[in-house]
Amino acid sequence: MSPRGRADVPGLVERARAGEARAVARLISLVEDASPLLREVTAALAPHTGRAQVLGITGAPGVGKSTTTSALVRELRQAGKRVGVLAVDPSSPFSGGALLGDRIRMQDHAGDSGVFIRSMASRGHLGGLAWSTPQAVRVLDAAGCDVVVVETVGVGQSEVEVAGLADTTLVLLAPGMGDGIQAAKAGILEVGDVYVVNKADRDGADQVRRDLRSMIALADRPADGWEPPIVKTVAQAGQGLAELVVEVDRHRDWLRSTGELGHRRARRARAEVEAIALAALRARWGDVGGHSELDRLADAVAAGETDPWSAADRLIDSSESGGR
Amino acid sequence: MSPRGRADVPGLVERARAGEARAVARLISLVEDASPLLREVTAALAPHTGRAQVLGITGAPGVGKSTTTSALVRELRQAGKRVGVLAVDPSSPFSGGALLGDRIRMQDHAGDSGVFIRSMASRGHLGGLAWSTPQAVRVLDAAGCDVVVVETVGVGQSEVEVAGLADTTLVLLAPGMGDGIQAAKAGILEVGDVYVVNKADRDGADQVRRDLRSMIALADRPADGWEPPIVKTVAQAGQGLAELVVEVDRHRDWLRSTGELGHRRARRARAEVEAIALAALRARWGDVGGHSELDRLADAVAAGETDPWSAADRLIDSSESGGR
Repeated sequence: MSPRGRADVPGLVERARAGEARAVARLISLVEDASPLLREVTAALAPHTGRAQVLGITGAPGVGKSTTTSALVRELRQAGKRVGVLAVDPSSPFSGGALLGDRIRMQDHAGDSGVFIRSMASRGHLGGLAWSTPQAVRVLDAAGCDVVVVETVGVGQSEVEVAGLADTTLVLLAPGMGDGIQAAKAGILEVGDVYVVNKADRDGADQVRRDLRSMIALADRPADGWEPPIVKTVAQAGQGLAELVVEVDRHRDWLRSTGELGHRRARRARAEVEAIALAALRARWGDVGGHSELDRLADAVAAGETDPWSAADRLIDSSESGGR
Repeated sequence: MSPRGRADVPGLVERARAGEARAVARLISLVEDASPLLREVTAALAPHTGRAQVLGITGAPGVGKSTTTSALVRELRQAGKRVGVLAVDPSSPFSGGALLGDRIRMQDHAGDSGVFIRSMASRGHLGGLAWSTPQAVRVLDAAGCDVVVVETVGVGQSEVEVAGLADTTLVLLAPGMGDGIQAAKAGILEVGDVYVVNKADRDGADQVRRDLRSMIALADRPADGWEPPIVKTVAQAGQGLAELVVEVDRHRDWLRSTGELGHRRARRARAEVEAIALAALRARWGDVGGHSELDRLADAVAAGETDPWSAADRLIDSSESGGR
């Protein structure tokens, strides 16, 4: 029984697999709201997943992520593919709500039944990507999406997190968005499988590509034999998208032929299991402002009566001895 | 016994309390490297902490955080205060190293024995601020700093995290850095105690202030009676810093008179204990690529043999039954 009424999970999964948008939306809501049915939903989806190509799109604010995502969706649709889009907003954990900016820019796909688009809030403290995002990917995968695009408003460590979630990570840059040190700080040099220099009709696009090429060569990337291509696009005008799709598919073929796809998916499952376990433990430890063991220990630390390490030991001991 | 040789922790703490910069640096290295002596260091520092005023400074790239921090340090030094600065870089978890950009801009304080400046890497997955940052604040507090400034390269959720760490959070903006939606997305409207419109000699500074004022009024802030002031500065020219210090001190007085200081510090201790406990559990669960129980469970999830929730349950059970 969910807060929104009883949900027939097997029925919803069947309807989602038949491509019914409302069933897809309902399932994503169930996983996003951490509904009591979350486990049942995940278990019901499991046999129908693993087929979709998962793309992560990230980059600093202003490089044109939403426009590029929208243009990429158009390109994939023209090739007859079913596409799902998850736009993850790093919205405030204080307000909890996702802003609508990204949805607004997707309106040109609003009437297309081969595209599912969903904005997700980035809740909680387990990183910039909500831990429900992998579940939402599963829903879209089971619903028959050939490609699932996860777009993050690229700030800080979310680039790294989307890299953990995706089969192929696209990192966007644009001319005039800051110097090389900014790029290096964001960790983008290590995580991109395909780089996109968007707004390539602007001055400096070739310079960005050259700088990027030499910085990637110096970056601490895995020595796995993949040399990330750099594609120039003008997403606003639909330019360069065909080449981008070629490179994305070339990366997918490489992932399959080398066995890297399996490694990435095992890493993804690992991060997911760990995040769920940590969330379960945090829930046991209680919410801020309650009268939990953690609150009592924190007061003792703040008062200087104990140190945080001893308090952490006692917290773990207490959750082991009686929390369940 | 640390990897760098035996350290005499009580002796280091004594020398740090006497203001010896090398001892301060060594203690911060011990906490930053998660040295085996970490617990001993924290315990030895505990009786000497709680006195410093902890300021967080955050804001988007390009607003002038480092310049403002440097100007603020100068202002505080002129008032005779001892100051510590921790510059937290969201450096790549893949490379693990902090870049030197922020240190370079602090060179004008290099010869001042009343200022400790330290760049810290933002390691690990427990959020944008390293979990060792609170320990480094303790070192600077025990070393007699009247004010400890924690500067974060403000991207995404690190604003929120620095707000959890600081007594007083300064949020910087500047004209021409993007529209209101960008500001709202970053969560800055909820977390600032004092707002700074830097580069106030540029066009649009008054507009930024007006927009900020009305957006703060609409934001979901705690109804605690504090109305955040908005200070205009030109940090490069040293303008507005005296007023900024006045507002920061007014907030400190408010924190003390309302009891909010105690609440904030208890919340800080809570987050710290929780982060340490989670890190301890993650360490038990083993590193990526090893042959831990977590790896086995992740493989089973990736192969569709189990769902991540059941795997998480088994992970917690296994750590409770034999991990210690």
